[in-house]
Amino acid sequence: MTNIGEEGRDRIVRPEFSEDIYAEDDSVRSDFLAMVGAAIADRDIIYLRQHVARLHPSELADVLEAIQPDQRLALVSLLGSDFDLSALTEVDEAIRLDIVEHLPNEQIAAAIGEMDSDDAVYILEDLDQQDQEEILAKLPFTERVRLRRSLDYPESTAGRRMQTEFVAVPPFWTVGQTIDYMREDEDLPESFTQIFVIDPTFRLLGTVDLDRILRTKRSTKIDAIMRDTNHPIPAEMDQEEAAQLFEQYDLLSAAVVDENGRLVGVLTIDDVVDVIQEEAEEDLMRLGGVGDEELSDSVAEASRSRVPWLLINSMTACISASVIGLFDATIQQIVALAVLMPIVAGMGGNAGSQTMTVTVRALATRSLDIHNSPRIIRREAGVGLLNGVFFGLLIGTIAALWFQDAHLGGILATAMLINMMAAALAGILIPLLLDRFGADPAVSSAVFVTAVTDITGFFTFLGIATWWFHIT
Amino acid sequence: MTNIGEEGRDRIVRPEFSEDIYAEDDSVRSDFLAMVGAAIADRDIIYLRQHVARLHPSELADVLEAIQPDQRLALVSLLGSDFDLSALTEVDEAIRLDIVEHLPNEQIAAAIGEMDSDDAVYILEDLDQQDQEEILAKLPFTERVRLRRSLDYPESTAGRRMQTEFVAVPPFWTVGQTIDYMREDEDLPESFTQIFVIDPTFRLLGTVDLDRILRTKRSTKIDAIMRDTNHPIPAEMDQEEAAQLFEQYDLLSAAVVDENGRLVGVLTIDDVVDVIQEEAEEDLMRLGGVGDEELSDSVAEASRSRVPWLLINSMTACISASVIGLFDATIQQIVALAVLMPIVAGMGGNAGSQTMTVTVRALATRSLDIHNSPRIIRREAGVGLLNGVFFGLLIGTIAALWFQDAHLGGILATAMLINMMAAALAGILIPLLLDRFGADPAVSSAVFVTAVTDITGFFTFLGIATWWFHIT
Repeated sequence: MTNIGEEGRDRIVRPEFSEDIYAEDDSVRSDFLAMVGAAIADRDIIYLRQHVARLHPSELADVLEAIQPDQRLALVSLLGSDFDLSALTEVDEAIRLDIVEHLPNEQIAAAIGEMDSDDAVYILEDLDQQDQEEILAKLPFTERVRLRRSLDYPESTAGRRMQTEFVAVPPFWTVGQTIDYMREDEDLPESFTQIFVIDPTFRLLGTVDLDRILRTKRSTKIDAIMRDTNHPIPAEMDQEEAAQLFEQYDLLSAAVVDENGRLVGVLTIDDVVDVIQEEAEEDLMRLGGVGDEELSDSVAEASRSRVPWLLINSMTACISASVIGLFDATIQQIVALAVLMPIVAGMGGNAGSQTMTVTVRALATRSLDIHNSPRIIRREAGVGLLNGVFFGLLIGTIAALWFQDAHLGGILATAMLINMMAAALAGILIPLLLDRFGADPAVSSAVFVTAVTDITGFFTFLGIATWWFHIT
Repeated sequence: MTNIGEEGRDRIVRPEFSEDIYAEDDSVRSDFLAMVGAAIADRDIIYLRQHVARLHPSELADVLEAIQPDQRLALVSLLGSDFDLSALTEVDEAIRLDIVEHLPNEQIAAAIGEMDSDDAVYILEDLDQQDQEEILAKLPFTERVRLRRSLDYPESTAGRRMQTEFVAVPPFWTVGQTIDYMREDEDLPESFTQIFVIDPTFRLLGTVDLDRILRTKRSTKIDAIMRDTNHPIPAEMDQEEAAQLFEQYDLLSAAVVDENGRLVGVLTIDDVVDVIQEEAEEDLMRLGGVGDEELSDSVAEASRSRVPWLLINSMTACISASVIGLFDATIQQIVALAVLMPIVAGMGGNAGSQTMTVTVRALATRSLDIHNSPRIIRREAGVGLLNGVFFGLLIGTIAALWFQDAHLGGILATAMLINMMAAALAGILIPLLLDRFGADPAVSSAVFVTAVTDITGFFTFLGIATWWFHIT
């Protein structure tokens, strides 16, 4: 989330390699944490300024996450204005809120005045209305207006994530004028890789990458080297969609424009990398049946976030159980069926979740669409058939030998084949249908796929057995 | 993978919005594909040059993936040297290999000479030794040496992914000299955001971001504005580790150095974004029990890649079945046990996979380490207890009413509580242990967790029932 500004850059220069705060396994070194803990206990402000305040914000964030909650607050209050608030953009939400709530609004306002607007918004957006207003009121007018504008855009939009500091020049300037302007202006963003070309009403005309400026003679006009568009991103665009544009066109930064095509900010790749990470994490967590959980959540919070999925699953499990209940007379006669039936359901469940994983991922990366879905559906059906035959024969043979009953083995093999075909089709069709109807396939596919494979597994195995043993 | 070069930049400028090749759902528009298909059938080279060759490489890649295999080869051969090979860095491996195998080596060599070295390596690395050598032999000496050096580094290292084109200047140059050099040199990389400072033996002294150069007076010496280090990346470093440095320090590019600290290349954020995507995808796929599958894989390939996990699962399923077999006498007496036992095992499996998902993700993002794992283990045990009590009571009550048997409900509730505690502990301890012993927790956690919850579920439920009903 943080741009490495001038300051950050100088601070991360550590001449001695022995000063690396990370151990082999990438966790913060225990001896370093012990020293920090001791310094906090001793209120040794000088040590903390020298060894903690000089860390890169993301390193400071790792330290904050590794120490105890009470140490966190003590450290922040000991460092006072030497504490770099941008570290908070890199910690768990719960930790961020805890620290921010304990900081005086004056200190937050002062720190926010120094930050790039995207980091400032990241910290402000989690605060309650009243604190937000108090802090904004302490900022200079332009700063306040800029931050308000970002905060006015809905969460997860490009407008909320953008940085409002940028360099914009008119098209009739020369490269020389532009370079001179950048040499003199004190108020440039902390770091940037392209400049924007605008008309007097701030409408975006084009962009120029810095390397282009450096390769071009001073006398050349900007409009001769600018590009017509660099995928301007509407401020209302969802951040996920914006991230896809970055990925597709390998962008480093992109202009954010309002509904009238006026330049309002710039979205940078570092924020986009965070979005990409979040999206990937979301898919994984949802497939695993976990909500927006964070590692810092309490037992009660984590427990609550997992109940919904378990609840739905317990309902489908009861349905599967009632399917078994239909065949209780058969089971009483042949107990081996009760022993073997979880294998049929379980293997189907695994095969279904394999197909579902492939499908959900392909949908998320937009590599599965109407052009290739017929082919992929056929492929999955083929895989289900092939693996169904293979595992049906394998497990069927094992069962036949185990219970010395070839009939039982044949029934098991048939049921497994049918269930693995059902699993393959459920694994691809359920996510596809959910996606078509605008639902997130990662959220609910697993429940439905498991329900299908359990019910089909129990019903085919017990049903075929009932039919076979009753008629012979 | 591709840098948007001068050429690419001009090509993606599309004045008319109606020319967007994407439909609402981000798939390539069917009418566009139909037109392309017709043009291929008619061998209408002029149309294809105008409408397909001018696409951005990543758009061209999407078109290639959307059309039929035979159309692909026809399109590539019709376009000839107008076909931008860098599009191949954005398609599925199988499609890339298919096209490259059908292209004459002369054409590949000519195209590779034009590309940035990272893209060139991406295409070369998949070819067999003989084709690689033939193509390299057709390249100019310096180019050949550079590409060989990249190819010599092992797959998935920074050295393999780096770009060997960069701008490097001596520390005693002024900003003015540096700008003049960039204005005159024809051989600059297609795009770049920082320049490197080196001594006469190519040892890396520091880096300067382009915005820094543009803000600084011409007379200033480079060594006055360079930064000491920007996390130089050893060429042998794994790309995943390098990606983590990029994420932690919000880098746009980083110097790659050999074992003597000599600058050999530069790693850029666009390649790193691909690595981040791949790593996230890998975790998701592995948790779902799927290997390095691609959407373009055939039925046989996909089927084979899924067999190993299913095989292990069928073994653990047989073990679970034999646990049930221990209690066949009990089941024969009380068939309700067979009806209810999948609920106990299933709910445990789901709870375990929730915990496992959280753990695997936290390990992958390095947010779970020795400092907080004791707390997270306690938390998960707490979640298991809480949800175990809740769902034990819920399902126990349902079972008691269903079978009109309070004893059965009590036994089910107890077994569920125990199994959900076991699930929580297995869900966190198994991935932690696998990680500690250097195994990838995403690969095999699911098998072990399911085995634990199945076996514990069946054993406790049937075991308690056997004990209870035999003594009363």
